[in-house]
Amino acid sequence: MAGHPYPICLDAKLEDIGKHLQRTIQPGTQILVVSQEKIVELYFQRLAAGLREYQVQLVTFPAGEEEKNLNRLQALTTEAVAFGLNREGVIIALGGGVVGDLAGFLAATYMRGVRFLQVPTTLLAQVDSSIGGKVAVNHPAGKNLLGAFYPPLAVWTDFSTLDTLPWEEAQNGLAETIKHAILGDQELFDFLEKYVEQIKKREGSIWREMISRSIAVKVRIVSEDEKEKGTRALLNLGHSFGHALESAMGYTGITHGQGVSIGLAAAANIAQQRGHIKSQETQRIHTLLRDFGLPVNISGVTPEQLLLKMGADKKNREGKKVIILPVRIGRAMAFRDCSDDELMQAWREVVVC
Amino acid sequence: MAGHPYPICLDAKLEDIGKHLQRTIQPGTQILVVSQEKIVELYFQRLAAGLREYQVQLVTFPAGEEEKNLNRLQALTTEAVAFGLNREGVIIALGGGVVGDLAGFLAATYMRGVRFLQVPTTLLAQVDSSIGGKVAVNHPAGKNLLGAFYPPLAVWTDFSTLDTLPWEEAQNGLAETIKHAILGDQELFDFLEKYVEQIKKREGSIWREMISRSIAVKVRIVSEDEKEKGTRALLNLGHSFGHALESAMGYTGITHGQGVSIGLAAAANIAQQRGHIKSQETQRIHTLLRDFGLPVNISGVTPEQLLLKMGADKKNREGKKVIILPVRIGRAMAFRDCSDDELMQAWREVVVC
Repeated sequence: MAGHPYPICLDAKLEDIGKHLQRTIQPGTQILVVSQEKIVELYFQRLAAGLREYQVQLVTFPAGEEEKNLNRLQALTTEAVAFGLNREGVIIALGGGVVGDLAGFLAATYMRGVRFLQVPTTLLAQVDSSIGGKVAVNHPAGKNLLGAFYPPLAVWTDFSTLDTLPWEEAQNGLAETIKHAILGDQELFDFLEKYVEQIKKREGSIWREMISRSIAVKVRIVSEDEKEKGTRALLNLGHSFGHALESAMGYTGITHGQGVSIGLAAAANIAQQRGHIKSQETQRIHTLLRDFGLPVNISGVTPEQLLLKMGADKKNREGKKVIILPVRIGRAMAFRDCSDDELMQAWREVVVC
Repeated sequence: MAGHPYPICLDAKLEDIGKHLQRTIQPGTQILVVSQEKIVELYFQRLAAGLREYQVQLVTFPAGEEEKNLNRLQALTTEAVAFGLNREGVIIALGGGVVGDLAGFLAATYMRGVRFLQVPTTLLAQVDSSIGGKVAVNHPAGKNLLGAFYPPLAVWTDFSTLDTLPWEEAQNGLAETIKHAILGDQELFDFLEKYVEQIKKREGSIWREMISRSIAVKVRIVSEDEKEKGTRALLNLGHSFGHALESAMGYTGITHGQGVSIGLAAAANIAQQRGHIKSQETQRIHTLLRDFGLPVNISGVTPEQLLLKMGADKKNREGKKVIILPVRIGRAMAFRDCSDDELMQAWREVVVC
């Protein structure tokens, strides 16, 4: 299943999914929709309207990153078996990143793999987590520690699901969009700067362009390196720092977007120290993050704790820390020569008492 | 990782593994060896002697099919992280089928996949479970319910590990070998009949030929159909029945080999009822199984219980039971038209009060 090309359908409508599926999935096929209560209330009826030709079963699990674990995988498996889902069946993830990752890992492993569809309903999921075929669950020792590369049949993206998205969740997606702009699309960065107010007001045409461009960056990088052997590591911009931060804080009191935002700020700081970017560019990055209400500073942890946590990141190769840094706005590179002193310095600049 | 060709090294020596690995795995690489106490006592020293150029960490878990679950995966993951295993690391499964399946599923999912080597030490693992790239854990609702297709870098098969194998474990491998003979190699079947005594005495040259031919059947079928879409289902000969039996008995009081043996006997019965094979061929199959001390009858379960359990087998497509039956000794085919009456009749013939 890994490695096949798949469509990312933008501006699709939930209720039209059946028209798309009928080409590849036989009528009567069992479809297990994995979602969460709140999302079900908002969207399940519309999705189900598009799946009338299939045998559909809905299963939900409680919201929260802490649900993305092997216990929940075990419980969802029990429900899939109770439904009678067999190898010809299909699993649909209806929701945000947690739903996509968990339902995707279920699809990757259930009976050694069944067909899988992503229906992302948050900005983060639409611009980032549903793209690229990575699925996983967390483990006490690390986020996304157990997972697979398991591309979906398709990603079905209905922008209208974003209308009801709480602002804090939109910020998670905006942080990733800013990351995409910094590492791969200068024009997207300019666009974000120019339309801050329109984006905050969620003007439809502006969001469409923003989301499409953000997805395009991720698609380009993932298609060059599906299995994360090289260039895909660039998507980790801000995340070595962000993951360390989330981990140090025990994944409470900080959203993923906030972690990434502070991570982007820290990466810009190091890049400037090393002379890769100018102070003016660092300022633009910090300002854009702040414009969307995203933090560039943190308190409640020490730089020492954060440095320690960075050592455990799974993206390190051969024991050396791989740090992604911007080399200008619109381009990033991987560096293996960042010293602990440099990292400490970067952390000191973002940690406030 | 899926789909790459990999060598199956026969008559290899445990202590020579390093010579093979040095071509693909850099010196100093972290290698996590997953095994069980009893196997470690017998073979770990020899294996470790071949891995002196690497950083080796041994982790063990208790013997028993009941250990092959998500809880054990979680615990092994904790140990892998404590060792500091990163994406460049390698996992070696040293042991029988349970070790290979569990360590393989860990390798398939740890950090979304690390390199993996099979070092099978039982006849069952050497002729069957280490070949074909299938890895999995059990779930209360079904055996091997969560897993992956994840071919190893290589299978390193040292026949000398079979010298110490308890006879009951050898029988598990003999049942699969008889299955391979029935479904794909008439000459192997003749060979097994001819050399029953020598096989029971474990004469080296006879075992070598038996194992090599048994592996060859599996390799041929798997290479035609790696993801189990078609012909690979033939390997399920005897297993639809065997799994139902093991499940009905709660996986206690019956070995996998005994389940397969009774399953082969039942499949032969149906094939004869349907006129695919002659009574003489059924007799040869039953006799060969019995010659190796394998059962062709069972008590303690009812035919009704067994039929019910067959409905839950994950290899069923679109709700229809796919039953593999011999059409002569040396050839099997998949049938979708077996009625419940026929299956009941077959069960009635093998169940004794």
